[in-house]
Amino acid sequence: MTTYAGSPGVPVSPVPRDDGIDVAAAAARRVVSALLHVGADGGAPMADIARDLDRIADQLEEHAPERQERVIGMWAGRPRHDPVTGPENALAPPVRLHGLPDGSVTGTVTLGLPYQGPPGCVHGGISALLLDHALGVANSWGPGPDGMTGTLSVRYHRTAPLFEELTIRARQESSEGRRIRTTGEILAGGRVCVSADGIFVAGHVARPVAQDEGGR
Amino acid sequence: MTTYAGSPGVPVSPVPRDDGIDVAAAAARRVVSALLHVGADGGAPMADIARDLDRIADQLEEHAPERQERVIGMWAGRPRHDPVTGPENALAPPVRLHGLPDGSVTGTVTLGLPYQGPPGCVHGGISALLLDHALGVANSWGPGPDGMTGTLSVRYHRTAPLFEELTIRARQESSEGRRIRTTGEILAGGRVCVSADGIFVAGHVARPVAQDEGGR
Repeated sequence: MTTYAGSPGVPVSPVPRDDGIDVAAAAARRVVSALLHVGADGGAPMADIARDLDRIADQLEEHAPERQERVIGMWAGRPRHDPVTGPENALAPPVRLHGLPDGSVTGTVTLGLPYQGPPGCVHGGISALLLDHALGVANSWGPGPDGMTGTLSVRYHRTAPLFEELTIRARQESSEGRRIRTTGEILAGGRVCVSADGIFVAGHVARPVAQDEGGR
Repeated sequence: MTTYAGSPGVPVSPVPRDDGIDVAAAAARRVVSALLHVGADGGAPMADIARDLDRIADQLEEHAPERQERVIGMWAGRPRHDPVTGPENALAPPVRLHGLPDGSVTGTVTLGLPYQGPPGCVHGGISALLLDHALGVANSWGPGPDGMTGTLSVRYHRTAPLFEELTIRARQESSEGRRIRTTGEILAGGRVCVSADGIFVAGHVARPVAQDEGGR
């Protein structure tokens, strides 16, 4: 699952694996989506399903370390948990982004019912979420500085459809001192549905470390 | 679960129920969160968990109607499936919003690991998602017209913490013809973390109806 056959560019988001937590998260995504595809009146035995899911959550929670320890652990290596590209996060579609030689990043994604806003369309806030993240990845990939979102302006040109392949693109436009400007868009069928213009400020929240490593 | 003891205002987002699909979605949320709390190295039997989750997804999918039929069904009544307030959507925290007599809406939410951006903080795109939705709800609740997002400008004042109660507020500021201006913010400990200023355009995507109901 680490090949990118036919895909231009270098993977700049975590590549999903076909074992371990990634497969469990992929299965959880199926459950989230299937619940919405069935709905309240679909005749599924929801009480039984809730009990089975709670049992799985119980089983997982037995293995969970103390929360702060876990937050440190998830930032010790390359993060794989974000809500847009994170293979370990069932909220993430996940989007897979590739870095291009021109400094931009791009990827495709097809979104289903969990991401719905207007009927049959992507929720406007979901488009903002995907673009905010893609702009951040573009800042990491491009030659300029990296930073945190200061302002994000999102323009909705037309509704983005569910169940159709969308293309996400982003690139750093300029940087001056600590101020970075980065833009991006979501397209369907070659037409821009949503565009974003972000001002980022160079710098990052420090990664958490264990108390006894505080000095490193 | 339909009481709002101690809460000001009228529920303006779907109220979670303690049975049926809402309970299954709540259990799915627990699974999504627990996966991130355990992580790849927590020693949980992920292959077994993936198999159990896939089995639940299979069971649900047996009850799923054809997709277009389902999209029509989920818009036939009051929608309960959106990714911010929808009790049927495991992606939604879900946020519960209340309408106040002054025309604004407000709610509180505490977000966990699935919503993380910077270490220990809410993802900036998640804040944009919550605010876009809250602004839309404010348009529905207030006395003015309702519409779809045209532009959304989000400003990040300081990081919003995970695991702490956040307050979300939104209100329609003005409307002129089809153009609506609506603002909102997310606060932690009384301080504004993120603010949003949206321009909405009056009107909505038509709700889908079955072919033989097309004329109604």
